[in-house]
Amino acid sequence: MKSVYITRREIFNAAHKLWNENWSDEKNEKVFGKCSNRNWHGHNFTILVTVKGVPNPDTGFVINLTDLSQIIKDKVIEPMDHKNLNLDVPFMAGKLASTENMVIEIWDQIKDSIMIAGGELAKIKLIETENNFVEYFGGSEPY
Amino acid sequence: MKSVYITRREIFNAAHKLWNENWSDEKNEKVFGKCSNRNWHGHNFTILVTVKGVPNPDTGFVINLTDLSQIIKDKVIEPMDHKNLNLDVPFMAGKLASTENMVIEIWDQIKDSIMIAGGELAKIKLIETENNFVEYFGGSEPY
Amino acid sequence: MKSVYITRREIFNAAHKLWNENWSDEKNEKVFGKCSNRNWHGHNFTILVTVKGVPNPDTGFVINLTDLSQIIKDKVIEPMDHKNLNLDVPFMAGKLASTENMVIEIWDQIKDSIMIAGGELAKIKLIETENNFVEYFGGSEPY
Amino acid sequence: MKSVYITRREIFNAAHKLWNENWSDEKNEKVFGKCSNRNWHGHNFTILVTVKGVPNPDTGFVINLTDLSQIIKDKVIEPMDHKNLNLDVPFMAGKLASTENMVIEIWDQIKDSIMIAGGELAKIKLIETENNFVEYFGGSEPY
Amino acid sequence: MKSVYITRREIFNAAHKLWNENWSDEKNEKVFGKCSNRNWHGHNFTILVTVKGVPNPDTGFVINLTDLSQIIKDKVIEPMDHKNLNLDVPFMAGKLASTENMVIEIWDQIKDSIMIAGGELAKIKLIETENNFVEYFGGSEPY
Amino acid sequence: MKSVYITRREIFNAAHKLWNENWSDEKNEKVFGKCSNRNWHGHNFTILVTVKGVPNPDTGFVINLTDLSQIIKDKVIEPMDHKNLNLDVPFMAGKLASTENMVIEIWDQIKDSIMIAGGELAKIKLIETENNFVEYFGGSEPY
Repeated sequence: MKSVYITRREIFNAAHKLWNENWSDEKNEKVFGKCSNRNWHGHNFTILVTVKGVPNPDTGFVINLTDLSQIIKDKVIEPMDHKNLNLDVPFMAGKLASTENMVIEIWDQIKDSIMIAGGELAKIKLIETENNFVEYFGGSEPY
Repeated sequence: MKSVYITRREIFNAAHKLWNENWSDEKNEKVFGKCSNRNWHGHNFTILVTVKGVPNPDTGFVINLTDLSQIIKDKVIEPMDHKNLNLDVPFMAGKLASTENMVIEIWDQIKDSIMIAGGELAKIKLIETENNFVEYFGGSEPY
Repeated sequence: MKSVYITRREIFNAAHKLWNENWSDEKNEKVFGKCSNRNWHGHNFTILVTVKGVPNPDTGFVINLTDLSQIIKDKVIEPMDHKNLNLDVPFMAGKLASTENMVIEIWDQIKDSIMIAGGELAKIKLIETENNFVEYFGGSEPY
Repeated sequence: MKSVYITRREIFNAAHKLWNENWSDEKNEKVFGKCSNRNWHGHNFTILVTVKGVPNPDTGFVINLTDLSQIIKDKVIEPMDHKNLNLDVPFMAGKLASTENMVIEIWDQIKDSIMIAGGELAKIKLIETENNFVEYFGGSEPY
Repeated sequence: MKSVYITRREIFNAAHKLWNENWSDEKNEKVFGKCSNRNWHGHNFTILVTVKGVPNPDTGFVINLTDLSQIIKDKVIEPMDHKNLNLDVPFMAGKLASTENMVIEIWDQIKDSIMIAGGELAKIKLIETENNFVEYFGGSEPY
Repeated sequence: MKSVYITRREIFNAAHKLWNENWSDEKNEKVFGKCSNRNWHGHNFTILVTVKGVPNPDTGFVINLTDLSQIIKDKVIEPMDHKNLNLDVPFMAGKLASTENMVIEIWDQIKDSIMIAGGELAKIKLIETENNFVEYFGGSEPY
């Protein structure tokens, strides 16, 4: 059983701020620095979704990239692109808009759709700037 | 007189929206599409500032990159990084926050400081996403 | 009159070979080397289209990037993406499929549409690999 | 025993199409979309080969990168660069030219040579476009 | 327990040569090739440090990137940037300046500080050129 | 006469320092900062050479990229790669090793060979880090 890992990249642009509602302005400023700017800031986010599977003998595919791309567009790009992550995205409501929390929530948004499409979600990488990114493996063993 | 063009790259992350106050919501939505999202979106902006000059025989420099970097940080990064371009940036007040308008205003912010440092501002390139960017030559002949 | 130059990037993947029908196999092999492989090879092409203009006071736009992107998609990506440049592309018929010839022909495909959309085509950059690309300014003075 | 993973990157440009000989034209078109274009299309492929090992005390090397590069050039670049993956590459004959199948076959082409050079092949990453790539770990546990 | 992996990127520019003091000039030249140039050569090194952890409910952070960046700057960039890796860096003294040895030594420089900051060092990736890089997981199981 | 500009990219890795022999250590340190480190530092330099010309009707080429690449390798990469720019490169002898001075000297090294190969050298871009680069047009009007 020769598993291959295939990755699809998509991008979205969004505003957010890092802000803990239970804290004073001073503490938010102290912990989150310029990321706590009251009037928001934003990023070009890049998301890379990796699916694990054995290539289908008839197609040579682990998963059809057209299907994988469509799942990401429907479940991630549509609700997050050109949006405010704190105000506009239902699955981020009430959560701190850190990349760590984003990647955990995105995992839950796409995991089942990928399974239905015949693949196994293995990893999500979320790039916020050229200098920082997060990776998530569903809380289980990383690859 | 052998002019060389030297470029310094800096980055900033900001929120904005494209919105014409004189228009209805419908017209803003029609013209600006998802960029008109009421609650903002954002980008990682990359700015490249190009200075023209003849290398100084004692230093081999057109301009000391430490000086050029400091000018960009003081005049562009400080007021724009982790800010809302529509609300927080004095020199963008009352202007549509398009990349075209941004690059024109940034030119005016740094031109004189670069001249004082001994160089001549030749070009600003402002990258909004991997798919679009603008270039400005001060309204005069481009290079 | 403060002209700004705005650029839109698009990509397409195509097969081609460099082959002069008037030459022997030996001469084709000698001049074009591995690029003359009878059974084709291919590339991920990146095209950057630059439009010159003065920002519209109502929109802040030189040209609406949605319009520019649509023109490139209709006139360049649709006929060239996932195609054979020697066999499938009408406007390349009978021409050597070099990047130099491609960029000249693409210019003629999009120039008028961009003018109708209110902009002036200033430059096309066509990247074939990370190590080589061409730029074209319509045969007139470059910027 | 402090294992380090070292990676060498190489590139090749090739034509291919996705086509199942047992299917009708309609089914090929339906499943593979524009990738089934009869006259081929192509890509700039980037391959990253990762070797695991403990640095040699005399050289500081897991494997001499000159040797690793030469193995990749002899076994992968030479047979695949500026070629048609469906027609010209012996080890792809009779196989669907998907990136998944390519990475599995490439593994078998280089595994033994790397072992002879004193390293252990740990991973191959094959990038087809900026938006999709595959990774393979020999069918065993990934790292 | 949903572990997320967060990565911070930093850069430094350094000179080095590959040279084994116990070998003749001829053997150094034979094994290390142009990397053995007596008068040194150099690189732009990129380092990516990955920290594993469960996001803090109050901050959404595995580790504050400001802290992580500061640790890397203090322990890696300060001693290595614009330095000679063979002559100027205390923790590389007496060791072959290969990327493999560099990444092992850097691990020991930052591991404890990251633990004190509340994270667990999971991986260091050190990029020497666009064509080669190394990864290290502390000698234990990779992720 | 439809001139096209074609560019070839090559890379080299070198050590250097910025140091004015006529100055005290203190002044060198003050002006050049960490770039004056006595024991050198280094970079991965990327050079992009642009040639202007009208495509040859028989080849579709402004210049054969194999020839252009060979000229750059012979005249630039061979003398500069894995070398010390202050000590090892004849055409940099006695000159401050700034990127500005490098690009001017490289111009003189390759200009005639490109003319003999049938092209016209139009521009050299020399990238020192991701944050700074220089461009040179032979001292005449830039394009």
